[in-house]
Amino acid sequence: MNSMMIFYLLYFLCLCLSVACVICVCVWNSLWRGGFAWDGSQLEFNWHPVLMVTGLVVLYGNGAVLYRIPLTWGYDKLPWKLLHAALMLLSLILSVVGLCAVFNYHNAKNIPNLYSLHSWIGIAATALFAIQWVAGFAGFLLPWTPLSMRKLLKPVHVWLGGSILILSIAASISGINEKLFFALKGQTNETQPYSSLPPEALVGNSLGVLIVVFGLIVLRILSTSEWQRPDSSPEDQTYAPILREESD
Amino acid sequence: MNSMMIFYLLYFLCLCLSVACVICVCVWNSLWRGGFAWDGSQLEFNWHPVLMVTGLVVLYGNGAVLYRIPLTWGYDKLPWKLLHAALMLLSLILSVVGLCAVFNYHNAKNIPNLYSLHSWIGIAATALFAIQWVAGFAGFLLPWTPLSMRKLLKPVHVWLGGSILILSIAASISGINEKLFFALKGQTNETQPYSSLPPEALVGNSLGVLIVVFGLIVLRILSTSEWQRPDSSPEDQTYAPILREESD
Repeated sequence: MNSMMIFYLLYFLCLCLSVACVICVCVWNSLWRGGFAWDGSQLEFNWHPVLMVTGLVVLYGNGAVLYRIPLTWGYDKLPWKLLHAALMLLSLILSVVGLCAVFNYHNAKNIPNLYSLHSWIGIAATALFAIQWVAGFAGFLLPWTPLSMRKLLKPVHVWLGGSILILSIAASISGINEKLFFALKGQTNETQPYSSLPPEALVGNSLGVLIVVFGLIVLRILSTSEWQRPDSSPEDQTYAPILREESD
Repeated sequence: MNSMMIFYLLYFLCLCLSVACVICVCVWNSLWRGGFAWDGSQLEFNWHPVLMVTGLVVLYGNGAVLYRIPLTWGYDKLPWKLLHAALMLLSLILSVVGLCAVFNYHNAKNIPNLYSLHSWIGIAATALFAIQWVAGFAGFLLPWTPLSMRKLLKPVHVWLGGSILILSIAASISGINEKLFFALKGQTNETQPYSSLPPEALVGNSLGVLIVVFGLIVLRILSTSEWQRPDSSPEDQTYAPILREESD
């Protein structure tokens, strides 16, 4: 099996796992957690896992591997640069709305914010992501950043991108684990304890496994140098901002 | 600042964070969790975080970056290969004893094993680590593995090595988060709730942050190609087993 076939196999797996993660987190929160609302209730909290998994894991991971798809290499980099920035912006917006859901819910119930390790890792991931997006926009899309700065920024952007994904995996796993312990106390007739592995626990645990496998595949694609987009001319392709490209 | 200076700065940080992680997990379990025993009690459980963090995170990460230290490049690879295998074996043994501690504690208290997402990710990390160690030993230290197999195994070994570290970070964060929620319920006069961030919560959360920063630095060192040990001859250095090297 040659290297490109392995890429497309991993990329196909990545797409399947993306769909599986989103279905799994939606099914969990619809069927077992009562669905969604925006009213400060438990139903508002349910947006939190759905939006974080969809935004900070699935869309983020897909945005990150975009440049690696060999089918896109024959074309101008500009539209892919804009699609990368747009996917990441959508991912950031979903993540921020996902954080608003949990802050609103906590405030309505007088539960303190940002005390758990899960919340520390999750807020660090989102804050770094926001910094990364602004720095990426200023560095790679605006025309007045000097070329030397772009060359310095690119490896930092690639490295920080992978690190944010690792943070978001750790935040997801700790969050799902915490939620299942909270929800499945087994003190009422309606819920069985987490330790007896009722269907909801199996779905939640499976979501965690899907997220981890998705993240490892994305990181594998990102770290394989032969799957990096070959730049026909490093001067005008990688580091040129869109405005300068358009004015050429 | 040149590339080697950056390496040594990151490696120095990696060593400082190693010491900080071990001190932090020991202090947490000694001062706030009552110390250690091997009697099926809560004190036996306390070995679990100490041994997993020391073995599966700190020793594992240090074993992984061993070949990247440029000071070692001028010497024969063999002693470093043996030290790598020995550090990883010690790390694996500590991890397995750390798992025994939690299984014994659960069994003594009639708590089911392996139901939480934390336990699924943690057991997957340890099982993959055991497979990785055996495959690495058979592939790189025994004389009868064909050279073609070694060449095939090396990238898989490097990739799986990084993936196991990511799993162990996710398991650590979810485990510390879960433990702090269990321990700091705030229902007795002795413990304040986790949400009020008492000193124990700050120490536990800080341990999680130290582990994540340590892991990201180790992964950064591993993923930088210019810090890979240059093999003077790929035939005899990278892929030759020790027994063949000794008989040469």
